[in-house]
Amino acid sequence: MFDPGKPDGTNNSLKIGISKDGTPELNYIYKLPARCGLAVRVKQNQKIEIENRSGTQVCDFWAFNAENLHEHLSMEHLHTSLGSILPKNGDSLVSNTRKKMFTIIEDTSEGFHDTVIASCDHHRYQELGCKDYHDNCVDNLRMALIAIGERAPAIPSPLNLWMNIPVDQNGKIQWLAPRAKPFDKIELKAYMNTIVVMSSCPQDLTPINGNDCIIQDLFFKVSN
Amino acid sequence: MFDPGKPDGTNNSLKIGISKDGTPELNYIYKLPARCGLAVRVKQNQKIEIENRSGTQVCDFWAFNAENLHEHLSMEHLHTSLGSILPKNGDSLVSNTRKKMFTIIEDTSEGFHDTVIASCDHHRYQELGCKDYHDNCVDNLRMALIAIGERAPAIPSPLNLWMNIPVDQNGKIQWLAPRAKPFDKIELKAYMNTIVVMSSCPQDLTPINGNDCIIQDLFFKVSN
Repeated sequence: MFDPGKPDGTNNSLKIGISKDGTPELNYIYKLPARCGLAVRVKQNQKIEIENRSGTQVCDFWAFNAENLHEHLSMEHLHTSLGSILPKNGDSLVSNTRKKMFTIIEDTSEGFHDTVIASCDHHRYQELGCKDYHDNCVDNLRMALIAIGERAPAIPSPLNLWMNIPVDQNGKIQWLAPRAKPFDKIELKAYMNTIVVMSSCPQDLTPINGNDCIIQDLFFKVSN
Repeated sequence: MFDPGKPDGTNNSLKIGISKDGTPELNYIYKLPARCGLAVRVKQNQKIEIENRSGTQVCDFWAFNAENLHEHLSMEHLHTSLGSILPKNGDSLVSNTRKKMFTIIEDTSEGFHDTVIASCDHHRYQELGCKDYHDNCVDNLRMALIAIGERAPAIPSPLNLWMNIPVDQNGKIQWLAPRAKPFDKIELKAYMNTIVVMSSCPQDLTPINGNDCIIQDLFFKVSN
């Protein structure tokens, strides 16, 4: 019986929470270990900066209203508000009730992020031939929330930072290596009290995390 | 406090359920009244055919696993399974656990359906300047389920049948009138026991339901 909040397996994401309830030490640079997920509280008017030191690592990014996890960042609502599937520097990111949750205040990359593809999950790796458990972004989201005492009521479609998924004018999709550069950063300012969850995407069977298929750490900090 | 299952207002969708639990009379042609939503049970191996007599009416379409509404048709998972944002005749439609829910067995249109835009909701019409309640697809979904004794645990991104939303290669989206013809039909075969919900999209402030902005009835039947 499918339960949105329950992981299909486990990894270290269950154990590496940054604090009991996800509250960060401000200005501290946290490491998000390769293949894992972490949750962090980013309050209204605070900023979160995520750094892609390798330039090849996709970060699945979700955000929830800290007071009600049924309200969350929503890609399908973002498409309407932007009139685009590619959010750019200066754009606002909205929730499933069309409230402004964040503004992108810096993006050093060329802005190739994905908003149309589901996060990888247990079922995806089974399709790709895995017999054993494979780390996956959906379980990382679930575990990152459990690690701070929360639970996902549903799995929102992710903002896949630096994931390079061109959609052509006939609707066809390609899965390509990121177009990011080493040390690219994206910074978001929060407009409500949020819980942000990030996953260092463990997809090593397609080239979406670089043609070498090596999964990398990511780094982030929260500041006022 | 946002509650995914609770309508923001009401219309006739609460009262026009096709039967107590949504079970249809097979081969009967049901009318889905303009601006309303209806839920219908479509069992494994049954087919549902939806008819667009005007050729101008968008149908927001959702489907849930009848045994567990947390599992539902998912556009973001569909994008991965198809390698496309445009489902075509012969394609299968998958759930958020990547299970095959339907196959499109007939589509008399040219296949311009939308899979990237959220359903209209109360908040969208407020943004568009409405002061009073405006019928909307999300409330139609909620009410259609309530009318058969069910409740939406989340609002999945819809399959917007006949909605013409070109996405160009720079990611830009346009909202255009449907490219369907009068009496276009789409027929789907179910691969699990489902609850299908359809809404005659009441969006009359943009031309997505035809340049005359007149909302029309739709028609459907379920057969073995």
